[in-house]
Parts: sequence; structure tokens; C-alpha cells
Amino acid sequence: MTTRLQPLTGIVPPLVTPLAAPDRLDYAGLERLIEHVLAGGVHGLFLLGTTGEAPSLAYKQRCELIERACQQVAGRVPVLVGITDTSFQESVFIAEQAADAGANAVVLAPPYYFPAGQNDLFASVARLAQAVPLPLFLYNMPSHTKISFELETVRRLMDVDNIVGIKDSSGQMVYFHKLRELVARREGFSLLMGPEELLADAVLFGAHGGVCGGANLAPRLYVDLYEAAATGNLPEARRLLQVVLRLSSSIYTVGDSQSSYLKGLKCALSLVGLCADSLAEPFQAFTGVQREQIARALDELPADYVPRLAAATPS
Amino acid sequence: MTTRLQPLTGIVPPLVTPLAAPDRLDYAGLERLIEHVLAGGVHGLFLLGTTGEAPSLAYKQRCELIERACQQVAGRVPVLVGITDTSFQESVFIAEQAADAGANAVVLAPPYYFPAGQNDLFASVARLAQAVPLPLFLYNMPSHTKISFELETVRRLMDVDNIVGIKDSSGQMVYFHKLRELVARREGFSLLMGPEELLADAVLFGAHGGVCGGANLAPRLYVDLYEAAATGNLPEARRLLQVVLRLSSSIYTVGDSQSSYLKGLKCALSLVGLCADSLAEPFQAFTGVQREQIARALDELPADYVPRLAAATPS
Amino acid sequence: MTTRLQPLTGIVPPLVTPLAAPDRLDYAGLERLIEHVLAGGVHGLFLLGTTGEAPSLAYKQRCELIERACQQVAGRVPVLVGITDTSFQESVFIAEQAADAGANAVVLAPPYYFPAGQNDLFASVARLAQAVPLPLFLYNMPSHTKISFELETVRRLMDVDNIVGIKDSSGQMVYFHKLRELVARREGFSLLMGPEELLADAVLFGAHGGVCGGANLAPRLYVDLYEAAATGNLPEARRLLQVVLRLSSSIYTVGDSQSSYLKGLKCALSLVGLCADSLAEPFQAFTGVQREQIARALDELPADYVPRLAAATPS
Amino acid sequence: MTTRLQPLTGIVPPLVTPLAAPDRLDYAGLERLIEHVLAGGVHGLFLLGTTGEAPSLAYKQRCELIERACQQVAGRVPVLVGITDTSFQESVFIAEQAADAGANAVVLAPPYYFPAGQNDLFASVARLAQAVPLPLFLYNMPSHTKISFELETVRRLMDVDNIVGIKDSSGQMVYFHKLRELVARREGFSLLMGPEELLADAVLFGAHGGVCGGANLAPRLYVDLYEAAATGNLPEARRLLQVVLRLSSSIYTVGDSQSSYLKGLKCALSLVGLCADSLAEPFQAFTGVQREQIARALDELPADYVPRLAAATPS
Repeated sequence: MTTRLQPLTGIVPPLVTPLAAPDRLDYAGLERLIEHVLAGGVHGLFLLGTTGEAPSLAYKQRCELIERACQQVAGRVPVLVGITDTSFQESVFIAEQAADAGANAVVLAPPYYFPAGQNDLFASVARLAQAVPLPLFLYNMPSHTKISFELETVRRLMDVDNIVGIKDSSGQMVYFHKLRELVARREGFSLLMGPEELLADAVLFGAHGGVCGGANLAPRLYVDLYEAAATGNLPEARRLLQVVLRLSSSIYTVGDSQSSYLKGLKCALSLVGLCADSLAEPFQAFTGVQREQIARALDELPADYVPRLAAATPS
Repeated sequence: MTTRLQPLTGIVPPLVTPLAAPDRLDYAGLERLIEHVLAGGVHGLFLLGTTGEAPSLAYKQRCELIERACQQVAGRVPVLVGITDTSFQESVFIAEQAADAGANAVVLAPPYYFPAGQNDLFASVARLAQAVPLPLFLYNMPSHTKISFELETVRRLMDVDNIVGIKDSSGQMVYFHKLRELVARREGFSLLMGPEELLADAVLFGAHGGVCGGANLAPRLYVDLYEAAATGNLPEARRLLQVVLRLSSSIYTVGDSQSSYLKGLKCALSLVGLCADSLAEPFQAFTGVQREQIARALDELPADYVPRLAAATPS
Repeated sequence: MTTRLQPLTGIVPPLVTPLAAPDRLDYAGLERLIEHVLAGGVHGLFLLGTTGEAPSLAYKQRCELIERACQQVAGRVPVLVGITDTSFQESVFIAEQAADAGANAVVLAPPYYFPAGQNDLFASVARLAQAVPLPLFLYNMPSHTKISFELETVRRLMDVDNIVGIKDSSGQMVYFHKLRELVARREGFSLLMGPEELLADAVLFGAHGGVCGGANLAPRLYVDLYEAAATGNLPEARRLLQVVLRLSSSIYTVGDSQSSYLKGLKCALSLVGLCADSLAEPFQAFTGVQREQIARALDELPADYVPRLAAATPS
Repeated sequence: MTTRLQPLTGIVPPLVTPLAAPDRLDYAGLERLIEHVLAGGVHGLFLLGTTGEAPSLAYKQRCELIERACQQVAGRVPVLVGITDTSFQESVFIAEQAADAGANAVVLAPPYYFPAGQNDLFASVARLAQAVPLPLFLYNMPSHTKISFELETVRRLMDVDNIVGIKDSSGQMVYFHKLRELVARREGFSLLMGPEELLADAVLFGAHGGVCGGANLAPRLYVDLYEAAATGNLPEARRLLQVVLRLSSSIYTVGDSQSSYLKGLKCALSLVGLCADSLAEPFQAFTGVQREQIARALDELPADYVPRLAAATPS
């Protein structure tokens, strides 16, 4: 396993958590969704990230999701599990569940209620890395956690045993390029891009891959874009980035901007028959006009990458 | 109980959670602390708020704290319990524990990972209010939750059964005055001020009380200030506010500003022998120079309100 | 003059700049407006502040306004002139114009394009204070300048000759109370509150007065509120603050929140026949529904304080 | 001229404004600096941008700079002039000076004191575009102006006569890619990248060039990087971006982060003998340790791109 992870490369979708109701997993949807993304050629799976609505799920559901997803994946690709929490001990608890279920690594953003200074952040994350039974990826997500892993903090954390990579979802490309230079000096340390609109930029300059939410819906699109960028095929990278931008500009921008990404993605997955569109509290699924808007947007995206509308959707 | 709560008035300290280690309650300290604040004349207790480091505690500890604190208080004053969480179901779970332990109300800030729009926020909080077995206070805390309960949202939530008050910790006094006008129309609805530096302002103009962190250390100071303000005794309110400002400017401002309040308060409580100064992750207690700085600051505060340094501190 | 200014007390309206067109003063309106606020008993005038749209005016207009307003006031009350600018030299230039026209003091917020650190800010403001021919008030306005005069910076600036006061428009009441404690130690140093909703809070606890935008429209309301607060008449202060909050909640909240204050205030002044409602670029006056909304709001405010709608408005 | 500008491509350095004193141009330095960047092959010059400290300069200096720089350039490359101001009329005034001096276009960021809504912003910028005698570039710079040109606003402004391009300094690469898609539909409309660390990303995907501050110091580096990216030479683009990142990480990061870019760049230009290092208020030049830090950093950058330290520096 360690070999496969160092460095982890390619497309690692942050798996949507299919929900039959705000507080109940959609088992059939989860199965379909996992098979769909694996069929699309993705290189790993990331459970319980932001796209997976992890902080909104009860611990019981998080554990259930880990177990079922790991069972279904059955070692076909590495599985990463988000353990971000405001409580250190609950993070450790989820990490232990992940190890028991056979996951390959855990992913940690800073605790997100109290904004810690960089020294406290470093020390606490270093202690956590020692306390978990799996390799750990850092997850930079300042829009939701309020604080960033500053470059100097990443530099110090790279020296901590068991920390094997970082996913940057800041969208700050200047920061990312500097992070890339920093990480390039450390063999086996993975650098993954969060926002899918920046996958091409990141991989062209040497990042190892991306954690693309859209890969839940159109996995092959992101896998092809990754490969084009990784092999320096610029014309193809440009062409595919354009498709990604069209998807992002149409599927993720309906309604209130604070939740349009999650709602749009789940609505689309439901419209193409992959899984139900329930969201965990505090969000509610699109209905009516907004659902129709997503349906029209799906229709205009290229059929070779984006599944067509299902006759009857499971929503 | 309902009678006592409507409206809740006076000083309701957000109880510090005494910790013997980052993951273990300090039972003796909890007992001493509760008796100390009750002896100071406080009108209620608020467990598991921001000052109580609730989001950093494991659920097991939160439950243990609720049970022990309620037992110790034994009905002498109303007990409010924070149920703020990113997961709706875990909020309900804590509320049920609180009800079982005999608490009188629960307190809820917006979920703090995903920033919800006001409509989603309203609908989700309204559903939660139906789902919990105790009266619910709203808790406005935008610095930590990223979003605010906008005035129009509060207006709508005031019509929801079971929502009985609001604590505002925004520090935005213009917002607070408008909130006050809004709340004044609803009999029995409590309005409590968060930042202790604004207790006098709030109560002079009609707020019902304050959730003052400093009341862990110097309960009588805040009780006296509350009473001065509630009775329109301006000279006394001015004099006591000055003491509060001195305490705040010296005890809460040492070291990194992001955590100076929590660290300073716990350090002070330890120095006067009330409880241990461990903090939950990701924070670490003051040591050395910073601890000495807090000790000197304590020494300069008036002895009739602020306890003197303990001979040997339990840190 | 120095005697009158130290400390400056009472209500000092930030005078609206009446414009006949986005780039032309409304001379008759200016005359009417000045007589209106003086008749209302205000204790000073502040030209070219935020409410005066100073940064949006050409220098030629700013000079013209200073000259005409000083002439009209003719020493009846002290006149303060805003010299806030991104260019040090242009600030000095406006200060010289103000001195020539007979103004009594100048008012300076931090330069607002480049966010300076506190050390650069201190040093630059100290140099500017030496370079201007009139006493200088600091103006804390972080929402528009991005940076704040931190308490320690104010403490250092209080030792600079020629700096005689500070106006705080941060709306941060915790900061204000600490600022108040700081300033209280310096005889003759003025502390003025910006947001009119906080005038009562500020003056009750010892601030010297307020720079209330609403005093353009209803000067006597703010003068009476100031006097109630300054004499510790709590019931009257509460009653009048309620009127201020009603005015603020209705007149300043129509349309896009970024400019609703300026547009609402100018619209109201126009509706009661005081001056034209043109705004400097980039803003446009209310028309249609929004103008009607302001008219209705005016109608519902108490006639003893707020002028009635003019038969034919000069808009 | 119009032909040359549509679209403007390549490297357009935002020219540093050499100052002999905070309020006096360094004429000899200006001459040397212009010849230095032209010798480096740059494709245009941008006067009075953020790097040019425009908002901190008196109008008299701005006019003097425009005149002298245009004279010196003498048509060898297009000259763009920043007219960003909080006053519409002063913007027009500077634009007229620019036209008289023979400049080729003007550049406008949103007014930066009052945060306008997008509708007011659109309407005001559209009016301004009509009022100026030269083609106009939009300049997106939210960190300093507080507001952004949202995509929909850019879409509307592209239909306004006389608006011929946009420079994006937001650093938000997701926004930039969407902007790029939008602009791609309009022939002759220029899209320029602000942050030099993102020049390669931008040009590889079709942007027309960059406004790179570092090109004041090392013009050939940015010209070569632009050409590598424009021709799809990925290995060379990667190699040169690495040099840019080293320069940026060492020269722009000394001291207080708010002004480290300006101070570091001017200090470096002074150390290599190009111009004096005075800054306009409120900033002061580096001295002592910080100046030595910049000197050491310069020494470690590749000599084929970055000039060597001057024997005696003109500071």
C-alpha cells in the first residue's frame, strides 16, 4: 500500500455521499456511484471530504459509509478518508475506523471552529499524525476552515513521519506554485489540486493529480484531462479544460452561491440516475425551476463525457 | 422551569471546561469552579459554549460534563447547554443528553463548516428546534461560524415554537440595538450579550443579561455590573465597566491573538487555584513568561472582585 | 479656536455635499442645509467626510465646498475638514485650503489604497500632522480604508503635537470602549463616535460627541440625544435612540446595501426640500419605487424631529 | 495605434515610479529604468499602476511622469496609463493628460473608497469609457479596491465602445479561466495577467500577456517566459517559472507583508543601480538588515536574467 501511495497520482474524486434522506445513506446509489467512477478510470477515492458533506453527517453514518465504500472498492484503487473534525479525539476515532475498514490513508484539514495560530496548528497536526494508524494527507481549505496551512507550516509538517501529501483547495494559484516548489524537493510526497478548474494548471507544472468533484459525474473527463496534462499534451489539455469550465459554470452556479456546488452536483447525479439528491442538513435539494436548469445544463454538455438524463430519476 | 427561563435574565457564565489533560475532565476543578461562580451570584450557567471549548471536546466528554455539571448545580440556577455542531443529528443527540441530565435549555449557533444561506439556515434551525426536547436559544457568533443570523432570519425564527431567546456574540453593537428593538416586541424572549465589554451597553438599553466569560474568574464583578445597569445606576456601571475593561485588556491579550482569550482565562483560573489549565487540542496552555504575565495582571486587578493567586497552583 | 476645540464636544454632522449634478455643487442647497443643521443646534460641522462623498469629488469641488461652507458658517460653530487622501501631498493641499478658508481643524483617515502596516501608518500620520496648518483629528474607518488605527498606534499618535482627537467609525464597540479608556487619560483629546446608532452608548460612557449622518436631516434629534446621554438622562436617551434606530432602519436600508446609506440620506434630504439628490460617481440617485419607499419612511418618523415632505422637491 | 493594441500582447511592465524623495521624481532613474526594460524586449509599458504607486503620488507628479515617460519611450512600444481614482473627474483629467502626451491607452480599476455594487460599477465605468479620449483597459484588483469586476459585469462592459481589454490581478485562477473563456469570444479584446507567478498559466491557456512587476528588474526573464508559454514550450516555461518563483519568494517577502512587494522591488532596483529607492508616503525604503537581505537574494538569482549589484548604489 505504501508503495501505491508515494506519491499518489491521478484523479481521486471526493466522493459524494449518496443520501436517501438527510440522515440515511442511499446504499444502492453508493454502489452505483462507486462503480461509475471506477469505470471512468479514476486512480483513487476520497471519502468524507467537503463534497462528501462529512461535517454534516452523524458519526454513525460516517462509519457506515467508510465500511461500505471500502468493501465495494475492495482494493481496486487506494481509498482516502477525511478525518477533519474540530475534536482531535473524534479525528483519531474516524481514522481508526478507516484503518479497520481497509482504507489506505486519511486526510486532515485544520480544525475549523477555533482559528488556531500557525504554531498551535503545526504542533497539533504533528501530534495527530502520530496518533493515527494510516498515512496522513494535509488538506488546505481556508474558505471553510478560516485558516490556511502557511508555506512555512507545510515545510515543518513535511518533516513529520506519516505525513505523505497535501491537497490544496485554496484556489490561490500563487500559493500553489510556491507549495509545488517546496514539495518538489521531497520525494514521494503527493501534491493534489482541489478545484477542478485548476487541475490542468497544476498537473502541467508537476502536481500529482487532482481531487475533482466533477469526477463523480464525469470521471473520464477528468482522467483524460489529467493524462493530457501529465504528458504535456497542451492542445488536448486546453480542449478538456474548456469542457470542465463549461460544466463548472453551468452545474455549480444555480441558486444561492454558498451551496450551489453541492446542490448542483447532487441534483445532476440524481438526474442521470446515479444516486438520490438528498443533502444533509442544513441544505435542501433543488426542486422545480432549479432542477430543470440543471437538467438543461447537463443536456448541453458533451455526451461522450457526461451521462445523459435518466428516464426516471431516483430522486 | 419555563417560567424561570422566560425571559432568562442576569449573568450566565459560559463555563470553562476544566481539563486535567487535553482529553480528560478535571473533576475537582469543575466542582470548585461551579461553586465559585454560584457563590458569586450568577443567574444561570451555560455549558459547552465557545469558552467551554465544546467543538474541541469528544462527545464522550461533552456528555460527561453535562451530567456532572447538572448534578452539581442541582437546580440552583438554570443550566443551558450548547448543542452547536456541524451535524444536525449530533446536535439533537447532545440536546437529548442535556434533557436527560436535567438541563433547562439548549443553545445553538449556525453549523460552522458549510456557510449556509439565510433561507437554508432558517429552515434547518426551525427543524432542529422541533427536534430537540428543550427550549432553544439562538447563538450569533459570526467570527467562528462565518455566518450571522440576519435580523430578518431572527424575526422569522422568533415565530418558531420552542425558540426562546438569542445570545449575540457578534460584537456589532449597531446590529445588537436593532436586534433589541426586534426582540422587545416579543414578551418572554431573552436577549443576552456575548462580549463582556458590552454588557453595560446592552443591559442599560434593555437586554436581559450577558454571557460573560470573565464571570468564571470574577463572577461577582459581572453580577454587580449587571445589577447596576439593570437599575440604571450609571456611575456604578461606569466604574465596574472600567474594571471589566482592565481585566479584558490584560488577561485576554497575551500571546497569539487567535487564542489569547481562552489561554489567558484558563491560565488565570489555574493561577488562582480554581482548575487546571489544560486546553483541548489544538491549543496548549501558557507557560513561562506568558504565565507570569497573567499572574502580574491578576495581581493588579481589584482584590474585592478577582481572586488572589493561589500559593501552589494546580496547573 | 484652540480653546473651543479642546475637547470638541457635541454633535458634528458630517455634512452631505449637495450636488446639482455629479460634478457640480448645489449652492442653494448647501446654504439651506447649513442653516438647517445650525438651526438644529449642532456643535460643529465636518465637511468632506465619507457622508460628504469627499473621495468621489474633484479637488476643485472640494475647495469650492470648503470656501463656501466656511463663509456661510462664519464662525458660528467650529468647522472640521476631511483631508483623507491616498496622496500625502494632496492631503496637505486640502489642509492648506481649509486653513485659508478659516476652518478650525482637519480630519484624517488612513490612506486607503495601499494597506499600510501600523508602523508605516504611525510614521506617515505623524509626519502629516507636522505638515498641516491646523489641529488634526484621526478618523478610524476600517470598512472603507481596510486598516484600523490599532490602539497602540493611537497611543503613540496621541503624543504627536497637533493631533487633538479621534473619530471612530469602526462600529466595534469593544474597541471603542478600550479607546475611550486610553483617551480618558489625555485632557483635551476629543473622542467622537461615528455610527449614530452608537451615539448614546458612547456618550453615556464618556465620549465627547458624535459625527451623525442623520443630523443632516434631523439635527435636533441628535442634539437632544447627545444632551440626554451627556447628562445621564437614561429614559430620554432610550426614547431618542429608538427614534434614531427607526430612522436608520428605514432610511438607510433601501436597495443595494453598499450604497443604501448615502442614497437614502440624499433622497430624504431632497424629499424634504433641503437639497438636490445627485450623487457623485459611481452612484446614482434613487428614483421610482425606491424614492417612494423613502418618502413613506419619512412620513412615519416623528414630525417634531424629521422635516415633512416638501410640496415640490428640488430633485 | 489601435491596430497595435488589439489585442495587446506580451509583457507590459507596470513601471515603478522612481522617486528621488517621497514627493519628487528621480529623472535619471526613470530614464535608466525605461531603457533597461525596453532593452529587455518588453512589449509595452504601464505607467501609474499599483506598482507605480499611482494613488500615493500627487497629480502634479503623475502628469510629469506621464509626459517624461512618453517622451522617452517615443513610440517604441505602446504606453498604457493608469487613471484609477476615487473621483471620476480626476480620472478623466489624467486620461486627457495621457492622450496629450501620446499614450496609447488608459487603465481603470474600480473606484476604491466606496464599495459600489455591480450595477453602479457597470454604469459608472461605461460612462467613464465614453468620457476618455483613449481606449480603456479594465483592471481587476479586489485586494486594493475591495470589489471585483464580476464576470457578468465584464460581459456587459465588453459591449461598451472603447473598452478594449482587461488586466486581472485578483490571483483567483478559477475566475481567470472563466474570464478567459468569456473574452475568447471577442476578437481583439486583450486579457492580461497581473501576478507574475501566474503568467505561465495564463499564457499557456490563451491569455495575451502579463503585467509583471518583476519585469522592472529582469525584463528578459518575463519576455522569455511569455514566449515559451505563447509557443507552448512547456519545459522552458517550467524552467523560467521556477526562476520567477525564486525571485518572488525572495525579493517580495522581506518585512511587513503589506508592503513587502513594493519595498523589495524598489530596494532591488536601487541595489542594481537602476533608480533610487524612495517610496511615496506612507511607505519608507528598506534600510540595514532588510536591504542586506535583498542584496543577498539578488546575488542568488541567475545572472543572465537579474542585473548584478552596483558598486555604489544610488539610494
